[in-house]
Amino acid sequence: MSGDTGSCRIETDSFGEIQVPCNKYYGANTARSVINFNIGGESERMPLPVIKAFGILKRSAALVNKSYGLDWTVANTIVQVCEEIIDGKLDDHFPLVVWQTGSGTQTNMNVNEVISNRGIEILGGVMGSKTPVHPNDHVNMSQSSNDTFPTAMHISVAIEINQRLLPALSTLHDALNEKVKEFKDIIKIGRTHTQDAVPLTLGQEFSAYVQQIKYGISRINSTLPHLYELAAGGTAVGTGLNSRVGFAEKVAKGIAEFTGLPFVTASNKFEALAAHDALVEVHGALNVVAVSLMKIGNDIRFLGSGPRCGLGELSLPENEPGSSIMPGKVNPTQCEALTMVAAQVMGNQTAVSVGGSNGHFELNVFKPMMVRNVLQSTRLLADACNSFSRNCVMGIKANHEKINQILNESLMLVTALNPHIGYDNACKIAKLGHAEGLTLKQAALKLGLVTEEQFNEWVIPQNMLGPK
Amino acid sequence: MSGDTGSCRIETDSFGEIQVPCNKYYGANTARSVINFNIGGESERMPLPVIKAFGILKRSAALVNKSYGLDWTVANTIVQVCEEIIDGKLDDHFPLVVWQTGSGTQTNMNVNEVISNRGIEILGGVMGSKTPVHPNDHVNMSQSSNDTFPTAMHISVAIEINQRLLPALSTLHDALNEKVKEFKDIIKIGRTHTQDAVPLTLGQEFSAYVQQIKYGISRINSTLPHLYELAAGGTAVGTGLNSRVGFAEKVAKGIAEFTGLPFVTASNKFEALAAHDALVEVHGALNVVAVSLMKIGNDIRFLGSGPRCGLGELSLPENEPGSSIMPGKVNPTQCEALTMVAAQVMGNQTAVSVGGSNGHFELNVFKPMMVRNVLQSTRLLADACNSFSRNCVMGIKANHEKINQILNESLMLVTALNPHIGYDNACKIAKLGHAEGLTLKQAALKLGLVTEEQFNEWVIPQNMLGPK
Amino acid sequence: MSGDTGSCRIETDSFGEIQVPCNKYYGANTARSVINFNIGGESERMPLPVIKAFGILKRSAALVNKSYGLDWTVANTIVQVCEEIIDGKLDDHFPLVVWQTGSGTQTNMNVNEVISNRGIEILGGVMGSKTPVHPNDHVNMSQSSNDTFPTAMHISVAIEINQRLLPALSTLHDALNEKVKEFKDIIKIGRTHTQDAVPLTLGQEFSAYVQQIKYGISRINSTLPHLYELAAGGTAVGTGLNSRVGFAEKVAKGIAEFTGLPFVTASNKFEALAAHDALVEVHGALNVVAVSLMKIGNDIRFLGSGPRCGLGELSLPENEPGSSIMPGKVNPTQCEALTMVAAQVMGNQTAVSVGGSNGHFELNVFKPMMVRNVLQSTRLLADACNSFSRNCVMGIKANHEKINQILNESLMLVTALNPHIGYDNACKIAKLGHAEGLTLKQAALKLGLVTEEQFNEWVIPQNMLGPK
Amino acid sequence: MSGDTGSCRIETDSFGEIQVPCNKYYGANTARSVINFNIGGESERMPLPVIKAFGILKRSAALVNKSYGLDWTVANTIVQVCEEIIDGKLDDHFPLVVWQTGSGTQTNMNVNEVISNRGIEILGGVMGSKTPVHPNDHVNMSQSSNDTFPTAMHISVAIEINQRLLPALSTLHDALNEKVKEFKDIIKIGRTHTQDAVPLTLGQEFSAYVQQIKYGISRINSTLPHLYELAAGGTAVGTGLNSRVGFAEKVAKGIAEFTGLPFVTASNKFEALAAHDALVEVHGALNVVAVSLMKIGNDIRFLGSGPRCGLGELSLPENEPGSSIMPGKVNPTQCEALTMVAAQVMGNQTAVSVGGSNGHFELNVFKPMMVRNVLQSTRLLADACNSFSRNCVMGIKANHEKINQILNESLMLVTALNPHIGYDNACKIAKLGHAEGLTLKQAALKLGLVTEEQFNEWVIPQNMLGPK
Repeated sequence: MSGDTGSCRIETDSFGEIQVPCNKYYGANTARSVINFNIGGESERMPLPVIKAFGILKRSAALVNKSYGLDWTVANTIVQVCEEIIDGKLDDHFPLVVWQTGSGTQTNMNVNEVISNRGIEILGGVMGSKTPVHPNDHVNMSQSSNDTFPTAMHISVAIEINQRLLPALSTLHDALNEKVKEFKDIIKIGRTHTQDAVPLTLGQEFSAYVQQIKYGISRINSTLPHLYELAAGGTAVGTGLNSRVGFAEKVAKGIAEFTGLPFVTASNKFEALAAHDALVEVHGALNVVAVSLMKIGNDIRFLGSGPRCGLGELSLPENEPGSSIMPGKVNPTQCEALTMVAAQVMGNQTAVSVGGSNGHFELNVFKPMMVRNVLQSTRLLADACNSFSRNCVMGIKANHEKINQILNESLMLVTALNPHIGYDNACKIAKLGHAEGLTLKQAALKLGLVTEEQFNEWVIPQNMLGPK
Repeated sequence: MSGDTGSCRIETDSFGEIQVPCNKYYGANTARSVINFNIGGESERMPLPVIKAFGILKRSAALVNKSYGLDWTVANTIVQVCEEIIDGKLDDHFPLVVWQTGSGTQTNMNVNEVISNRGIEILGGVMGSKTPVHPNDHVNMSQSSNDTFPTAMHISVAIEINQRLLPALSTLHDALNEKVKEFKDIIKIGRTHTQDAVPLTLGQEFSAYVQQIKYGISRINSTLPHLYELAAGGTAVGTGLNSRVGFAEKVAKGIAEFTGLPFVTASNKFEALAAHDALVEVHGALNVVAVSLMKIGNDIRFLGSGPRCGLGELSLPENEPGSSIMPGKVNPTQCEALTMVAAQVMGNQTAVSVGGSNGHFELNVFKPMMVRNVLQSTRLLADACNSFSRNCVMGIKANHEKINQILNESLMLVTALNPHIGYDNACKIAKLGHAEGLTLKQAALKLGLVTEEQFNEWVIPQNMLGPK
Repeated sequence: MSGDTGSCRIETDSFGEIQVPCNKYYGANTARSVINFNIGGESERMPLPVIKAFGILKRSAALVNKSYGLDWTVANTIVQVCEEIIDGKLDDHFPLVVWQTGSGTQTNMNVNEVISNRGIEILGGVMGSKTPVHPNDHVNMSQSSNDTFPTAMHISVAIEINQRLLPALSTLHDALNEKVKEFKDIIKIGRTHTQDAVPLTLGQEFSAYVQQIKYGISRINSTLPHLYELAAGGTAVGTGLNSRVGFAEKVAKGIAEFTGLPFVTASNKFEALAAHDALVEVHGALNVVAVSLMKIGNDIRFLGSGPRCGLGELSLPENEPGSSIMPGKVNPTQCEALTMVAAQVMGNQTAVSVGGSNGHFELNVFKPMMVRNVLQSTRLLADACNSFSRNCVMGIKANHEKINQILNESLMLVTALNPHIGYDNACKIAKLGHAEGLTLKQAALKLGLVTEEQFNEWVIPQNMLGPK
Repeated sequence: MSGDTGSCRIETDSFGEIQVPCNKYYGANTARSVINFNIGGESERMPLPVIKAFGILKRSAALVNKSYGLDWTVANTIVQVCEEIIDGKLDDHFPLVVWQTGSGTQTNMNVNEVISNRGIEILGGVMGSKTPVHPNDHVNMSQSSNDTFPTAMHISVAIEINQRLLPALSTLHDALNEKVKEFKDIIKIGRTHTQDAVPLTLGQEFSAYVQQIKYGISRINSTLPHLYELAAGGTAVGTGLNSRVGFAEKVAKGIAEFTGLPFVTASNKFEALAAHDALVEVHGALNVVAVSLMKIGNDIRFLGSGPRCGLGELSLPENEPGSSIMPGKVNPTQCEALTMVAAQVMGNQTAVSVGGSNGHFELNVFKPMMVRNVLQSTRLLADACNSFSRNCVMGIKANHEKINQILNESLMLVTALNPHIGYDNACKIAKLGHAEGLTLKQAALKLGLVTEEQFNEWVIPQNMLGPK
């Protein structure tokens, strides 16, 4: 293939001729879209996981079409090019942005054109001639943008979730769980309403985070069954017109075998084209994970606040200089990246919901926007969890001295007296301590509500960590 | 009990004395909250399902506490009052608004106070004396606001979903499914990108809606397991301090038996107090249902648009005059109520997510706001689905004549020619037809690409409804 | 009027006859809506500010119609009933919920019917007879639901903002500003990234909150001009059909005079019916205020966290017992109500945007939902600001001792050395201090980078409060 | 500068040494961030407008610092490099992603390092030596990340809005306004509730869109004053420590002169660092524009639906083949890109609000996320408006024949009879027409409510376009 970008070849579609750069495999539909949708620039390109998912789909379709009579050479060549796409060898040939046709038709055609022309090249033909590998009649055989794009949406999200996000959440889960074990005997003050409360262990505190992540993983997993349903075979409106009986099932089976994920053909193709509730559902689970991560990130930065003027119970790893003006400052930057990602995912939830709600009749035309947001959320959550695990959680240390010091200053240990002297009397002790700056014991004895012996026997943080 | 609202009695709490209306059972904490949180007025009161859930919880707790030694008379009286609360007999005694303490402490105390005073009344004591039924020491025994309020959140939402929403979605599902059967043989034009596309049956079109609702039900069901986990037994920070070993499990069991729902004690109480991911998760499923309903509502109003100047494929039931100025106008008002509800639920999703993300340390203090939104979404979706089913879907009629007329005018039936003459040739026919206002057959014949016999054999809508 | 609720009278509309309770003024349209839209229950009723705004509009319209020939007795009676509505005397006669026709037609008819029947009653006629005061021909003269409902939306929101929200924000502004003055000489540690930073005064810290509220007021004010544009006169689609030349301007003028707010007729009636961008814009400003309040509420609860184990720089007023289990606990409950409101407003923003974006052709049919959300946000923000001002801000005390103590422990005062010894050397001092638990001076002297005299001269918090 | 990417040089910061690619100007802080924040990949890089805004800021700061004594050669060199940055010559040297420190410190240091090393190169020094141009002591002189990053946020957004978005909205406004003129005499059926209503002109219908865009421009403009306030001079916490009296004002003045935009120094620096309400406010206006565009995009695609089976009142330009399976299909793809952008902006609104609400104490640490979303919304709206204007609006044609045909079939012209025969009688005519499939006149005459002469005189669409 020519490296000459200056010159062009002529490609054609039903609208006529258009010039295409000679060093690109794409054709007229793609070139037209580049001109017609000059929106957002390079960072807004269709995410590569979608392109690779198309490679997986077109590969499977070609194999099924071969069984239905597609010329073996053509079919095998399509398979070969698809594998190049899957391997990332043709990434430069997919210039289209997300903000195009709402069905993703132009990206489907971009893929069809690249496979056609690269296939033609392999087979020694003339690029742009559409022969012997025709972008519509061969590469798109038994397909429509309307069923292929949602199929690629599902494949790409399922792969990203399985290959990136779930492992990253597992990493975070395990890193937090290590801390649960490490901190299991450290008794600390609890805080409710941000105010001093009764004690718990630092391990118990971290166990809540572990539970959030553990449930986050299960939440995501419980949304996958609908994601594994593929629209392929529905063609233009869901009827499967111009497809073959059995095509849908066989393509899904081929994709399942290739990816190792349990894809099946969608039980209702009309729904699979007209709505993308499955993506809204998946993003709903991502949104819960974002909500969890915001909580965890906030807690850890506040518990690590200081070093001298904050809560100071945790020491977070120092990974970089913290301030361009305050020397020696160390900041909870991993918490910040994590919580910014959480905010983005919460925003993407709104975008995905709005897109999902606006389908009309047989087709939802917010497809590229929806998949972009789900993929961005997936990727950002995955990367941020990995980064947070490795650059923050694993290195967290407990400041035993500080934790112990403030625990013993707390007035809320008075709660242990409730069963002995009643809530109302216990109240009086706490209020006196607060008003006069006394320790709890000083206040209790001053009021004569307990003896010192009783106090020492009843108010023991170690005995306040569970039911009796 | 006195019906005299003018006079008052004095109630006390740890802050001192305060006047309370004589005809109310609540006490000092409630009276103080009424003064301190004058926010929003009556329509912003804590939803009654939360109050009833508290009744269920306090009832179960009293029975368990009896087994741990609580005086039988006190315990039985608490049970009796709880059943009055559950039956809605004491609704007027819960004046607090959602916009109070973020832990819901004041509503927990409101419940404790009402049970205490009503119990005292039953037992012939002096209201406000806290004896023989003490609001804290007896009614709140082994409990804290921090574990009771989230327990009531889960109970109330679970009941509302099971008793209202799931049956309503079932009703809608069945109503739509009836139409699938009724419309199964009506062939109509499909529309993608809002533009004419290839045909499908009206039954197939409605089958997508059925699938959306069917999956919506399964989405909600898949979020319930986390909702069935109850915080009760965690007390103040999740440790269960001042509770008894076994209390948590027994209370959950009692609630499960009373409600017939599979509640269990939460596997991690720290998470159950500090985060409300379970509610965010449940609302995520409600949000998908809202997204589905927006699609369905929009489709049905557009398909029913007209009567003369719209798509006119459906006739919706006429339930009321449509316009105060345009005589005889009939509007798709049920679609409008439904889609307004959908928009509200999409907004509530943001509120719930923001609240869920903002917990700190051992307690999330957005509890009343969160449960209010989840309950509102549940109720509105349920009622709107019932209304939409009964007042719209069940009465929808297909306009056979109009459907048939526009189907036959469509140019997109040309797609049936693809396998015979190729995509590019088929394109030429459609474009000629559009440009010159010809029927498809006229254009096809004019271009000489098919014979009339071939056209008649190949372009048959009935044959375009599925793969070959 | 009969107080007998058991019996009914017959009312009619173009759909026929329907029974109406005898003790209600409303008619057939309202009765039909009660049956057809059984959604959400009483707490979901159309907000009363909308009903009162309708009173204002219908009053003005009657006066203008009188000038165009409407019978004087009829007109004057309409005016009289409108004033009863405005005064809240007829609140029980507006039973309809928000979740009705998306144009609010049924609420417009509810108002027309109540005015008609109450007017008939005043004039000694037979209720339901529509004579001598006809709900459509007289009360709705020169009007349509499509222009009256958006007019009532604008009036109600403008009044609520001017009468409730702006004064409440002013109250909060002034309360915070008092604290700026009170705290102007209290030097404290600054915190960035939640970590210790360089000092500022507590007054400076609070001045940021003052600025946020001050700008919040200006943000709201800058959205009012579009809100002051009224749709009245556009009638059914914006053309003003069946209205009179000059009607629109005169009605707006009358409303402006009655309310004292600068209402004018909308410069484009088509936009005023088909879109509600003005409400989305107003809510955008409410959303910024919510965002500001979330920041302020969070800061104040964290600065007031403790009393022993938190930051403890502020003491917040104690308004109620804080915990049903932890005696003596005092919580930042006003911050919690405030931030819950903020979260709700952020959610309402999404609902309003979704509703605003979904208008079609000549009419947006998310009107009741939109105005409900804007009114709820307005009311909740207003009430929460008042409550927060009076029950929290005004009573905040600075804990001088704690503030001073932690200020002097901070290492970040090292920043004052940058201009003297450079950033890199200053870094070394801070890091040594942190690593070895030294004071800043100890670390500085140990490294020999400054003399004690220099340190004492250069590191003075009082000199770190501004540029040089 | 060496093009050798394989080899590296050693750079240092307060954390020690780190390797940096030889062909990059950045230093240790940047290199560390690349490792520590491996989140999202290249498409998640800090937007270039932020980098250019930093160039503008650092340029102005150097000039001001020169006036305060910074070495002239150093200052002039900084200015020279800043202009290279502004011109986009150094884009490859800013590899950091958005998901980094929440203060943007690392991007500030990235800029400082690039300016330092490129300045050192110009002056013949050794890169990494920090001399004669020190990244902190010279480039960052009188600055902190905490005031520079928000300054760059405001500059970048203000420039993008002024240079991209406002012109694009103007283009759209004018394109729509051309259509208002072109379509001013085309009378068509109005549609409310998606149902047939009374007539208006197509020009009137488009005038609503013009009004929405016109007001959108004014909405954006009304948010700019707060955006023009710059944080520079606040340094670390807002006090301006280590800055010079007058620095803030002079820097803002310099930036204003360089950009031609009316920047001023922020009236309260504490607010300018701790909160980003100004960005939330700006995005609130972008959100309204998105809401408007969703309405307009939806209307235009529905009015252009067909060509045979839809409303068919408009013909949209055909820019590309519409379907990979349905030959000859033309879709409203520009509407789709536009409405997808609108959905994204509505989502970004949530993200920006969540970020804005989560600042703590003296610093909001959601800065990079917030500016990314505001810039993305700005760019996407701008590009989408341009694309929609040029590729859709300008080429819209009215289908006179279809418009006229359905207008005359409508029953809603009956509204013109209200003033003559009353609402109730007019109702009967419309209902009969609908029930029996009659024209309006046929129904009117059949009922004997008007004479043919009266009908012809009263029911004239041309007379229904305004008040009388």
